[in-house]
Parts: sequence; C-alpha cells; structure tokens
Amino acid sequence: MSKILVINGPNLNLLGERETKIYGTKTLEQINDDMKKLAEKNGVEISFFQSNHEGEIVDIIGKSKGRIDALIINPAAFTHTSVAIRDAISATSIPTVEIHLSNIYSREEFRHTSLIAPVCAGQISGFGSQSYTLGLEAAIKLAKK
Amino acid sequence: MSKILVINGPNLNLLGERETKIYGTKTLEQINDDMKKLAEKNGVEISFFQSNHEGEIVDIIGKSKGRIDALIINPAAFTHTSVAIRDAISATSIPTVEIHLSNIYSREEFRHTSLIAPVCAGQISGFGSQSYTLGLEAAIKLAKK
Amino acid sequence: MSKILVINGPNLNLLGERETKIYGTKTLEQINDDMKKLAEKNGVEISFFQSNHEGEIVDIIGKSKGRIDALIINPAAFTHTSVAIRDAISATSIPTVEIHLSNIYSREEFRHTSLIAPVCAGQISGFGSQSYTLGLEAAIKLAKK
Amino acid sequence: MSKILVINGPNLNLLGERETKIYGTKTLEQINDDMKKLAEKNGVEISFFQSNHEGEIVDIIGKSKGRIDALIINPAAFTHTSVAIRDAISATSIPTVEIHLSNIYSREEFRHTSLIAPVCAGQISGFGSQSYTLGLEAAIKLAKK
Amino acid sequence: MSKILVINGPNLNLLGERETKIYGTKTLEQINDDMKKLAEKNGVEISFFQSNHEGEIVDIIGKSKGRIDALIINPAAFTHTSVAIRDAISATSIPTVEIHLSNIYSREEFRHTSLIAPVCAGQISGFGSQSYTLGLEAAIKLAKK
Amino acid sequence: MSKILVINGPNLNLLGERETKIYGTKTLEQINDDMKKLAEKNGVEISFFQSNHEGEIVDIIGKSKGRIDALIINPAAFTHTSVAIRDAISATSIPTVEIHLSNIYSREEFRHTSLIAPVCAGQISGFGSQSYTLGLEAAIKLAKK
Amino acid sequence: MSKILVINGPNLNLLGERETKIYGTKTLEQINDDMKKLAEKNGVEISFFQSNHEGEIVDIIGKSKGRIDALIINPAAFTHTSVAIRDAISATSIPTVEIHLSNIYSREEFRHTSLIAPVCAGQISGFGSQSYTLGLEAAIKLAKK
Amino acid sequence: MSKILVINGPNLNLLGERETKIYGTKTLEQINDDMKKLAEKNGVEISFFQSNHEGEIVDIIGKSKGRIDALIINPAAFTHTSVAIRDAISATSIPTVEIHLSNIYSREEFRHTSLIAPVCAGQISGFGSQSYTLGLEAAIKLAKK
Amino acid sequence: MSKILVINGPNLNLLGERETKIYGTKTLEQINDDMKKLAEKNGVEISFFQSNHEGEIVDIIGKSKGRIDALIINPAAFTHTSVAIRDAISATSIPTVEIHLSNIYSREEFRHTSLIAPVCAGQISGFGSQSYTLGLEAAIKLAKK
Amino acid sequence: MSKILVINGPNLNLLGERETKIYGTKTLEQINDDMKKLAEKNGVEISFFQSNHEGEIVDIIGKSKGRIDALIINPAAFTHTSVAIRDAISATSIPTVEIHLSNIYSREEFRHTSLIAPVCAGQISGFGSQSYTLGLEAAIKLAKK
Amino acid sequence: MSKILVINGPNLNLLGERETKIYGTKTLEQINDDMKKLAEKNGVEISFFQSNHEGEIVDIIGKSKGRIDALIINPAAFTHTSVAIRDAISATSIPTVEIHLSNIYSREEFRHTSLIAPVCAGQISGFGSQSYTLGLEAAIKLAKK
Amino acid sequence: MSKILVINGPNLNLLGERETKIYGTKTLEQINDDMKKLAEKNGVEISFFQSNHEGEIVDIIGKSKGRIDALIINPAAFTHTSVAIRDAISATSIPTVEIHLSNIYSREEFRHTSLIAPVCAGQISGFGSQSYTLGLEAAIKLAKK
Repeated sequence: MSKILVINGPNLNLLGERETKIYGTKTLEQINDDMKKLAEKNGVEISFFQSNHEGEIVDIIGKSKGRIDALIINPAAFTHTSVAIRDAISATSIPTVEIHLSNIYSREEFRHTSLIAPVCAGQISGFGSQSYTLGLEAAIKLAKK
Repeated sequence: MSKILVINGPNLNLLGERETKIYGTKTLEQINDDMKKLAEKNGVEISFFQSNHEGEIVDIIGKSKGRIDALIINPAAFTHTSVAIRDAISATSIPTVEIHLSNIYSREEFRHTSLIAPVCAGQISGFGSQSYTLGLEAAIKLAKK
Repeated sequence: MSKILVINGPNLNLLGERETKIYGTKTLEQINDDMKKLAEKNGVEISFFQSNHEGEIVDIIGKSKGRIDALIINPAAFTHTSVAIRDAISATSIPTVEIHLSNIYSREEFRHTSLIAPVCAGQISGFGSQSYTLGLEAAIKLAKK
Repeated sequence: MSKILVINGPNLNLLGERETKIYGTKTLEQINDDMKKLAEKNGVEISFFQSNHEGEIVDIIGKSKGRIDALIINPAAFTHTSVAIRDAISATSIPTVEIHLSNIYSREEFRHTSLIAPVCAGQISGFGSQSYTLGLEAAIKLAKK
Repeated sequence: MSKILVINGPNLNLLGERETKIYGTKTLEQINDDMKKLAEKNGVEISFFQSNHEGEIVDIIGKSKGRIDALIINPAAFTHTSVAIRDAISATSIPTVEIHLSNIYSREEFRHTSLIAPVCAGQISGFGSQSYTLGLEAAIKLAKK
Repeated sequence: MSKILVINGPNLNLLGERETKIYGTKTLEQINDDMKKLAEKNGVEISFFQSNHEGEIVDIIGKSKGRIDALIINPAAFTHTSVAIRDAISATSIPTVEIHLSNIYSREEFRHTSLIAPVCAGQISGFGSQSYTLGLEAAIKLAKK
Repeated sequence: MSKILVINGPNLNLLGERETKIYGTKTLEQINDDMKKLAEKNGVEISFFQSNHEGEIVDIIGKSKGRIDALIINPAAFTHTSVAIRDAISATSIPTVEIHLSNIYSREEFRHTSLIAPVCAGQISGFGSQSYTLGLEAAIKLAKK
Repeated sequence: MSKILVINGPNLNLLGERETKIYGTKTLEQINDDMKKLAEKNGVEISFFQSNHEGEIVDIIGKSKGRIDALIINPAAFTHTSVAIRDAISATSIPTVEIHLSNIYSREEFRHTSLIAPVCAGQISGFGSQSYTLGLEAAIKLAKK
Repeated sequence: MSKILVINGPNLNLLGERETKIYGTKTLEQINDDMKKLAEKNGVEISFFQSNHEGEIVDIIGKSKGRIDALIINPAAFTHTSVAIRDAISATSIPTVEIHLSNIYSREEFRHTSLIAPVCAGQISGFGSQSYTLGLEAAIKLAKK
Repeated sequence: MSKILVINGPNLNLLGERETKIYGTKTLEQINDDMKKLAEKNGVEISFFQSNHEGEIVDIIGKSKGRIDALIINPAAFTHTSVAIRDAISATSIPTVEIHLSNIYSREEFRHTSLIAPVCAGQISGFGSQSYTLGLEAAIKLAKK
Repeated sequence: MSKILVINGPNLNLLGERETKIYGTKTLEQINDDMKKLAEKNGVEISFFQSNHEGEIVDIIGKSKGRIDALIINPAAFTHTSVAIRDAISATSIPTVEIHLSNIYSREEFRHTSLIAPVCAGQISGFGSQSYTLGLEAAIKLAKK
Repeated sequence: MSKILVINGPNLNLLGERETKIYGTKTLEQINDDMKKLAEKNGVEISFFQSNHEGEIVDIIGKSKGRIDALIINPAAFTHTSVAIRDAISATSIPTVEIHLSNIYSREEFRHTSLIAPVCAGQISGFGSQSYTLGLEAAIKLAKK
C-alpha cells in the first residue's frame, strides 16, 4: 500500500481566516479531509504535517526516506527562500508534487521564482483547494512507479 | 452542457516520436482520446485544436468568446514568446488552464518564464500526459462557475 | 494622390467588446469610418488591414513598397515581440506612424518596450480612438514629403 | 472656455538654432504661434511657459490646479530625471499630454525611459513641430471631458 | 486597553556586548525597561518576545491575531530573507511598525532591501535604542485606530 | 538652546488637497503647528523651509552650517534623484533625520531607493503627519549630542 | 542521394532591393541558383522554402523528419524571437546549419543573441551571399554522416 | 587548551546515503571520528553540532562566545540564504573556517554565492571529507592566535 | 582674445571647509585666483560662475553660445543626474572640459557614471586643485581651434 | 598573389589530445596541412602562427599591416577576454575571419559573447576542423577585394 | 613518486614587501621552503613556477600533461580574468587545487568570481601562507588517486 | 631628481598610422619627444616603455618599486581587462596617472569602465597627445610629494 505525506509550510495553519480572497475560505483541516477521502478511494495511506519552521520540514523529509512513496508539498513562503528544503527533497529522492493555492505567477514578482520546483516531479498552482486533490492524484501515480 | 476547448501549440503534432525522454511516447491523438473519455464521464463537451501558427491560436481564442466555457492550453514554445495569446485570453475572459508535459522549471532558464501564466486561472506542469487529464478536471470545475 | 495603409495587429478585431475600460467602446469598424472621413477631407486614399498573424503583416508591408506612401500601425501585442515587423518597416523604408489606444507606459513593465518604435517616424499613445485620427494627420504630412 | 497651458523644459529656448538635424529649424516662438492659431480656431485659451529650472515647472503645475483644464508638456531632459514634475502632475490631477520633437526611442538608451509618461494621459513623439499641434488637439479633447 | 507585542529577531539577545559601535551598549533588557515605562505612561499593555528561530516568530504572529492591537518588530537578519514573517504579518492584518537600531541604508548593499517593509505601516531606523521608543509611540497610535 | 530646521521638498506645499488617500488631509501649515508646540515643550528653537527647487534646498543646507544643530528633511521626489542634497548634508555634517509621510517601500519600485538615507542619522516613514513629530523627537536628541 | 532543404525567414523575399548596404544586391533567386549549381556538382538534391510566417517554417521542419538529411536556415528576424523554430529543429534532430548574410555581432545588441544557435550544428555569419554556399558545403558534410 | 566547535547545517545528517556521487560515502559520524583523532594529536578539545534548524545554529554560535576559540562550519544550504548565521558569527567574533564537501563553484549558479564567507577567516571547498580535516588544521592555528 | 568660462556645480561654494580629506583645504576663491594668473600668462580672458541650481547652469551655458570659446565645468553632484546640463553643452557645441577634484572612480559606485562626459572633449579627475589648472591648459588649446 | 595568415590562440597546440569529444581528434598540424592544400589549389600564400600569449598575437597582427591580405583567427579563450586583439584587428584594418571548432553557443554562457566578432568580417563556428577550410574559402574571397 | 607543480600568478614575486596587511610578511621563497619540507616528509616531488605572464602559465600547464600528477595554483589577478588558464587546466585534466592567501570573498566585488574554480578539484582561501601547506596536503591526496 | 616612467599599452606602437580620426596623426615617438622636452624644463628624469604584453607591463611596474617616483600609464585595451596591472600598481604604491588619447566615455560601452582608475591618483582622457603632457605635469607634482 503506497504511503503519501502531505507537507504544508508557514502560515497555512491560518487558512480559511486569512486573506480569503487569495486563499479561499476552506480551513486546512477541511482540505485534509477532502484528501483523506480521495486517498481511501484510491487505496493509499496518507498523513499530514504542517509547520512554520523550515527546520522541522527538513527533518521530516529526511526521516521520510524509505518510509514514504511520494510527497505533496505546499512550501508557501519557503518556496522562494529555502535551499534546505530543496536539498532535502534531492537527498531523499522521493518523488514530490509542488502545490500552490493561488496562481503565484499573477502575484508579486518575488513569488514567481520557486527554489523547490526544479527538484519536484511537477507543479500545480492556482486552483485553490482543488490544487491539493489534483496534486494527490498526481502523487498516487508517482508513488506507484 | 459545459464546453471545453483544448489548444495545443507548436510541435505538439510531433508528440510520441519527438524527444521521448522529455515528452513521453504517447501521441497527441492518444492523449486526446484519454481526455474525451474523461469528458464524457463528466458530461462535458470537448473539442481539440493544434497549430504551429500563433495567429491561428489567437484567432480561435477570439472566436471562442461566448461559445466556450473553459480553455486548456499547452502553449509549448509560445509560452515564452507570445504576448498575442496572452492578450487573447485576457480579451475573451474565458477561464484558462495552462498545461505543460515536462517540468519547465528544471529545463533551460528561458523556459522558466511564462507570459501566459499571469492571465490563466492556474498552471499544471511536469506530469506528462497526466498533466492533460488533471487540467481537464480543473477546467471542468472552472467551466461550472 | 497620397496612399495610406492602416495596419492593426492581434486581437484588435475584438475592439469594442474587449476590456472596454482600457480600450474604449468603439469597434474597429467605427474607428475606420472616422479615419475614412478624415482621409477624404484631406484628399488622401486610405485602406485597412487587420490580422492576428505576424506573417501576414510582414507580407503586406513587403508588398506596400512602391504602392503606399505612409503606414499607420497599431502593432498591439507584436509591439513587444516582433523583430520581423520591425525589419519589414526598415526594409521598405515607408514612413510609419506607431499608434496605441492605451498609454502603454502606465501598464505592465513588458509593455514599456517597443521593438517597432526605433524604426518609425514617431509614436502616439494613450488617446483611445483619437490616437488613430491624430496618427492619420501625422501620416498625411509624412506621405507628402 | 477651456484653458490650456503649454510647458517647455530645459534648452527648448534654444530651438531653431540648436542641433537642427534632430530638432528642426522652427524657433519656439514660431511653434507657439502655430498653436495660438489652432487654439483660436477651436475656441480655447492657451498660455505658454518655458524654463530651464525644474523647480519653476513644479511651481507652475502646482499653481495650475483649478485654473487650467489640460497641460501640454515637453519635459525635454527632465523626461528622464524628474520625479518632482511627475509628482506635480499626479498631485494636481490635470490631464496632461507629453510631447517630444524627436523620436526618443531611436536615440540614446537613457532617453527611452520617461518618468513622466506613466502619469500622463498619452504621449506624442517624433513629428517635429507637428508634435505640438497634434498634442494640442489631444489636449482640447481632454480639457472638455 | 490596547495591547502591543514587541518582537526581536536573531542575535538581538546579544545586544550590548556585540559590535557596540553599530548597535550601542544597551542590553535588550534595558531597552525593554524603557519601553515598559513609556507603555505604562500611555496606558497600554506591552509584552516582549525574542527568538533566533524564524518559525517561532511566525508562530507568535499567527497567535497574535485577535489578541494584539499592534506589533513592533525588529526583524534583524530576517529583514532581508524572511517571506514567512512577511506573510504572517499580512495574514493577521495587525498594524506593524518595523524597527532597526542602525541605519540599514548606510551598511552592506544586501541590507538595503527589506522584505518586511511593504506590509508594515511604517519603518523607523538608525536611532539606536530610541528607535524602539519612537516605534512604540507610533504603535500606540496605530493600536487606537 | 538647540536649533532645528525642517526642510520640505517639492509638492509638499500642496499637502492636504493632494492625493489625500496617500498623504492625509492635514496641510503643511497644520503639521508645522504641531511641531512648533512640541518644540516649545522641549525647549528647542524650530524653523521651517519648503521649496520645489533643489538648488534652494542645497543653498539653505549649506548656510545652516554652524547655525543649526539638527535637520529634519522630507525630500519628497528629491529622495530618489538628488545627489546634490546628499552632498550638502555630507558637506555640512549636521545630523539629519529623513522623514516620509507614506511608506515608500509599498509604492512604485523607483521610490524604494533613497539617495539621501545613507548620509542621514536615521529614517522614519509611513506614519503620516506623525512621521514629523517622531522625527522631531529624534532630532532633538541628535541636536543635544 | 543526400537531400538538403534551405529555409529563409521573414523579409528575405525582399533581398536585393532592401537595405543593400547591409544585405548586398543579389536577389534570393540568384543566391538559390548559386546553391543549385554547387549542389549538382556535389551530387546532392536541394530544395528551397521562404516564408514570413513562423508557423509555416515550423510546419515544414516538422514534415522534413525522415525526408531531409540536413537543413540550412537563415532565420532572419526569427533568430532572436522564435522558440518554436528552435523546438522544431530539436524535435526532428535533423543536423542544421544557421546562416546570416550580415555579421549580426556588429549590429544592434538584440541581434547578438540567437535562440536557434544552441540547437544547430554550427553557424556562419557575415559573408553575404557566400554565407549560403559555405553553409551548403557544411551541410553536405553533415548530411553524409 | 584550545576549544573548537564543528557545526554542520541542514541535511548533513543524511551524509553517506545521500547523493554519494556529490558528497561521498562517509557518514557524518565517520568524519567526526577522523576529526577527533586529529584534535587529540594536536591537543585541542573538539565538540560537534548538527542541525537542520537555522535558529538552533544561531543559538549555539551565540552561546559559544567566550567558550569556544574557533568554529568550523559547513553551513550547507544555509550558505546561500542565512543572514542570521552570518550576523551570529560577526556578533561573537570567533574566528571561523567555512567548509564544503563539494566544489560549490562547479554546481548550480545560486550555490556560487556564500553569505557566510565574508565574515569567515577563510574557506575550504571541494575535497570531500578531507575538507573537514584541512579545516581543523586551519582552525587549530586560528584558535592559538 | 579667447574667452573661457569656468562653471562650478553644487556645494563647491563650501570648498576648503567641507570634507577636506577628499576635497583639500583650498577655497574656491583661491582656486579661481590660481586660474586667473594662468589665464593672464596665456593671454586668455576668464570668468567664473558657481551655482547650486541646475537651471542656472543650464541658463548660463545657453547664453554662452557665440560668446565663450571654451567651457570648464566641475558639475559636482550634477555629474551623475543632469541630462539638462548635458543637453545644454550639446546644444551650444562649445568645447568643454570636465573637471573633478577627487578621483570619482575610487568613490561610491553611483559616482562612477558621468552623464556629462560623453559630450565633453575630455575629462580630468583626481588631482585636487591642480585639476583646474590642467583643465585650463586643455581649454586654452580647445578655444584656439 | 594574396597572402593569408592563420592565427591560433591558447591551448590549440594541444589539439587532438585534449577533450576530443568537443574538439575532435585532428592535431593542429593536420588541420594546417588541409589548409595548405586548399591554399595551393586557390593560388594563395598561407602562413601559420600559434601562441598562448595574447601579447604575441597582438604583435603579429600589428606587423601584418601591409603584408597580409586577410586573417583567419581562432582566438580560443581570448575570444571572451581580449580587447587588445580586438583593437589590433581594428587598428590594422585587415579583413578577418573568426573561426571556432565547437559551437560556442551551446556551451557555457560566458562563451556566448565574443569581443572579437564585432570587428571581424564574419564568423564560422561549430564545424570542427572544417571550420578552418570554410574560413579559408571566405578569407580568399575577402583577400581579393 | 608523485610529482606536484606549484604555480604562482602575477605580482606574487613581490610577496612579503607588498600590502603586508592583506598578504602577510612571508616572501614567496619562504613559503616555497615550507612546502618543500612538507613535500619531503610526504615523499612527493615538488617544483615551483612564478610568472606575471598569463601565456607562460598556459604554456607550463600544457607541458605538464603526463609529467605532473597534481597542480597547486594561486592565480592571483588571473583568477578573475583568464579563460585561457581555465581551458589549460581542463585540457590537461590534471587535478588542481586553487589557493588564495587572502579571503577573496571579503574584498572588492570583482574578486568574488573565479573563472578557475569550476575546473579545479577544490579551493582554499584566506589562511595566508598556511593556504599553501593545506593545499599541498590536498594535492598529495589527489595525486595518489 | 624625480624619476618618472611612462608606460604605453597594446597597439600604441601603431600610433599615427592607425585610426587617425580617433587617435590623431602623431607617432608615439613624437609624443615621447614632447614629453622629454617638458621633463627637461622641469628638471625631472623620464623614461619610456611600450609593450603589447600585459605580463611585461606587470614586470616593469614591479621592478619600479623604489626606483621610480611616479608612473604615467596609457593602459589602452588593458584598461578594461587587466586586474594584474591594477594589482601591480597597488602592490608598489607608486603614485600613478592614467592617460587616454580619446574620450573613452563617448565610445563603446565596455570602454567606459576602467579597472585601473580606482588605484590611480587621477585620470586624464580625451585631449589627444596633450593628454600626455598634462599627465606629465600632474605626475611631476605627485613625484615631489
């Protein structure tokens, strides 16, 4: 049975209350519930992790080696600043799907560059909470390879 | 019944034979067949257009106004060079999903910038032919709004 | 009798319906009618061409050599991307007036640079449909030189 | 009766004698006379101001608030260096037409950027002394709005 | 009664001993005491937080939502590198004053750019420990709005 | 008795009427009255100078040498363009506080760079008319050194 | 028997009449005749294609796969703007020689960068019509490999 | 007796299993053992610290002040992103040797810039695990100064 | 008898008291006296002008046309910001020598670029007050041509 | 009888043994022999020069003035760094052909810029040892002009 | 028996007398003596070469092929300007250690970039004369591979 | 008796015959004669050196230490490329005058930057052969200090 880990970066714990025009009104818990159902339907095991600490995200990716078949990551602010998360993904070689709620390409210029993207299998951005379920579909396929 | 148009840009007619390490071995016809089945299952009407001519793509987007509910576009090389396609999408205001077979962020630097992305609802890249079916799921949801 | 050709670039066929806050509510046909009247009053012959295809615009400029005394061009999206149209204007040496409906200098940064401007006699931008009639006045004077 | 003020920036007092290949042989006085005639024909009141001092131009724009219906400005060298004039135009909100005798886009690279353009209604450049009469036509229309 | 939280970023725990030519000889404790007195005089409640961990600062800002009326932050090194703190301030919409002990504009070039400044109400830099008391005055006013 | 001079740059004579969303509704006179009261309370002598002319500001700074103990300057548009004012401050070595009404870091990119900041003691921006009174507090302390 | 296709980009149909100081007085037809003779002498089959339409050039390159042994291309203005032609050459893997009449490195800066060069075998520029015959010699050798 | 602290940044806990072509097959423990032996031979006391958390590294450097005579740091991913670690090294003024396993100058461009290097005594990169023992030799000499 | 005008830009009235390590201890008056003697010896007429106002410098250059045979200018801060002075020199075509007391190439980066230099005959910088007498020698020769 | 000099830059003495995948297996001597035969057939005199010293190459170009009718140069590493060789070619005005064995446009970015190209008649790159014989054909034609 | 060659670039012959604050007081001879002793102790043969001529350094690297097992190079000023030395190292494929006396990353910006580093095994900088002995240790290990 | 050495860089041996519009018709010998006379009149000893080899210029500067009181250098092409000559001047600390025949600021952009200028006392450019005699006057004064 494939195992998928979903990692959410800084401030995503505030989802649903924060800048709802950009990020939508669903809370992270609700999004996770949607993903759980989809995971069950597809017969994969799913777990969740959120942190505002870059180091904790690096820690968990490092520990996922040999235990997790695919990663889904919404690196949020760390998208543009974390070489450490990038290196963690490279180091463990777990196939990874990068997710964004908003279309980062229609926002401030510094959000157009992702340090994480080049080491991921692919990227999905701009579809609100649907970005997560689309990302899960992609991850399931990657986990099976 | 929602109507969705899939537009493929230059050289995608060569899919399946061309640089298969980057683009996979499925032909465009096979990808379209996959999408047709998924469209049927979801009760939406789907049509396809491929051209190596920027002008023809601009023409068909302009004509889609009022006839099409959502666009899926793989602009291929035009991603990085066509302001005209960008303006056509803006002008018609049809919700649009940008698709790429490969992860454009792990290729040559000039492929990291998309002129099309800022006017699309979202972007999916890097999942091979699955990028199209994920994109269709996203487009179906956009078409219903 | 001086002959003037007016060339309109991509998406200008959609004028009057498209983003009317930026581009105004007049259709291209109505703008052309205004120009025709002004041309008649000044005793010059005027003709019109619109295309979404860069190649067709290059074709018609090439054929204008020796037949047309001045060009008016609203290159729209091609303003920022077409070296081919620039070279066509240089190659034929027909005096040319560059026209824009909106003030391109108060829009996105990539619209601030015109590849066409350096080979034109002059540029008029920001006066909506009046940009065309002012451009025609300028073109009439250039055609008489 | 609409009131229009024409502002000319540094070194334009030398027009007609200075680098005549670039700027033509008409003096500023002759250009003003042409504009006066056109203003009379259109029933608008016109006044003129030339200064080599950025501060004086900022002063007069500030004082124009509530007294002048449209501005025509050839900022000359200040085009590329004066944030103060830009702010003065923004502060008074008088509709403004930017004018250049020469085509600034076919000259030195530093002349391609106008700090003034983004706060003007529109820009006319490259038609020699005709730039002023075309600008006046545009200003008359703006003044009536 | 307004509540104000003062956040100090990395290495500010070393204040008073570290590079005293740049940062002065007061310790952070002494600065906090000065602020407490000023807060009391103005009838506002004040609390303090220092951390070398970006994640902890993001955590506390997130938790401040609905509990704190204004933030004072000296992001120190995170000024130039933390999108996460910037997003936390945006997400909570608490009015924020950015503080620096030294004049960051007369130091190394990379210190001239603040990722935090655009989402703050205002910025005070260069007045040593007085930057904090001036910042508190500003924060008190913002908290009352 | 310490002497402080407040210098206001171009277009600040229009305060209170101009773009009030950015700059507030207080006139410069009202702001000066607030400062006078605060100066009296602190037993310092204060004087005021406003000009739209860079040269006049350079003149008055030069003459302040040996007569003025601290400067407060809102260089407005000259913030981004005047090396002459920067050099005048350096030349006289009078401690100087740079003031801005608005947060210049959340406005157009060209407003993010201050040529004046590196030669000032510190900078205060974004607190509307309060920027002036905070600046006065800072200047009083600098004048006493 | 080796087959070679010669592709000429936009405005090259005007050769011989256009800016003859830069491009020489030979027409494209005369250049083609020279190449035909050289081809015959070397026992290779040669064909020619000229278009002002990027899309048509992409079409013909796509169709050349498996039919043509080497390409000679003078991309003209498309040298600097066409990712689509670059991708077409990559996609078909036909060995390609890039040709320019003029020395593009002694012209405007934007002409110094070729998007096409990195996917070609080699480049010949600056020898006028001789660039074509030298290119043909190179292509014949490539075709035989 | 000199005291030396060795700090290892993010993902270095995975050494020996991760991308062994770039980083070699020795684990961090084995490297530390080599260093211990060399330290003993030279009569210096050595201790080790590894963390994926930037904040923890800043914490320990701050606490090293007055207790440690020289630092050896392999900042890994933080090399390119951490102003906080740079400031910690400056703040404590402990002489520091920067170490890299791989030659960072023959890898991705963003790895060519070190924020840490300008505040270190020197840098050693590219010699695999030998970088550590060479660094220890350098640190021993620095500690004795 | 040749006539030479010496123009000094902003803050040079403070020479001799201001930052004497960079600019020396001679006052402007003393420097002018040195030049007068040298002018007399060479039989040329010399006059002097200093202003902190860019506009006044532009005015006097404009009036020099036909009256002055060579200009010596130390544009000081205007070196890096004044297109207007550059255009005045071009407009009048009087041969001009650019002078700097200090070596501008060993100071802040923004002082390395001179907007004035490209329209001058030549430039002398770094020799303190001797820069003026060397410049006068050069100007005398230019005036005689 | 036309005289042609072939100049080879640094490290080309190692040809045939060095990085043969990029540069081929022919030695410089073998390439020279091919050129000699072609020169004889065309009735031109040919001589050869190789040096790793920029100064020696500048020397020989200077001495070629009036003795040599055309130069062929493979500047190798000096392509990207030598203004001196560029100036030598300009100074002597001998028509020059720039040659490269490999396609410099598909290698490291710093190899894409040639300081030599703008002063040469033309450039041939990417055809291995055939670059030399094609270059000789071009040089023969230039020598006859 | 391994053979190691030490190459010193321009101005290093002046070591010990020149800018001793940056480069230390040891002469090159003294440094070489230190290395000789270390070489002997390790049973390797060592030789030395110093030149101010880039060409001579390229020559000797070329001749080292097959005779020398490892290179130590302090390229000094050539670090930032010599593609020729870089190519020589690549061409001969001898493992190379790059050495700097000073920490080039805390000096002028143009010294931060090394053209040589990407083709070396590794780099050691900032440890004064110890850089050489550390480099020799590294080179001995490389020579044995 | 002061000793002055004049160094001329690459291609200056061709002076008088080469591009006389830019560099004038005097030969280097004639310029040297002018300098000799001026040196005699001032009672200083003068010697001359010209080389196309950067290394020889570095050599002679190194040897000048303690023997020469001031240097005059026209680095020609090396102005823009030689860090080695810059370091040689720094290393010997001999006061140096940089000379250029032409105004390098009105030529190609790459000639606007001098690597040599920051370590010289001052720079004189644009006065043709008079640049040398003015430079000698400056050098004589520097030599006496």
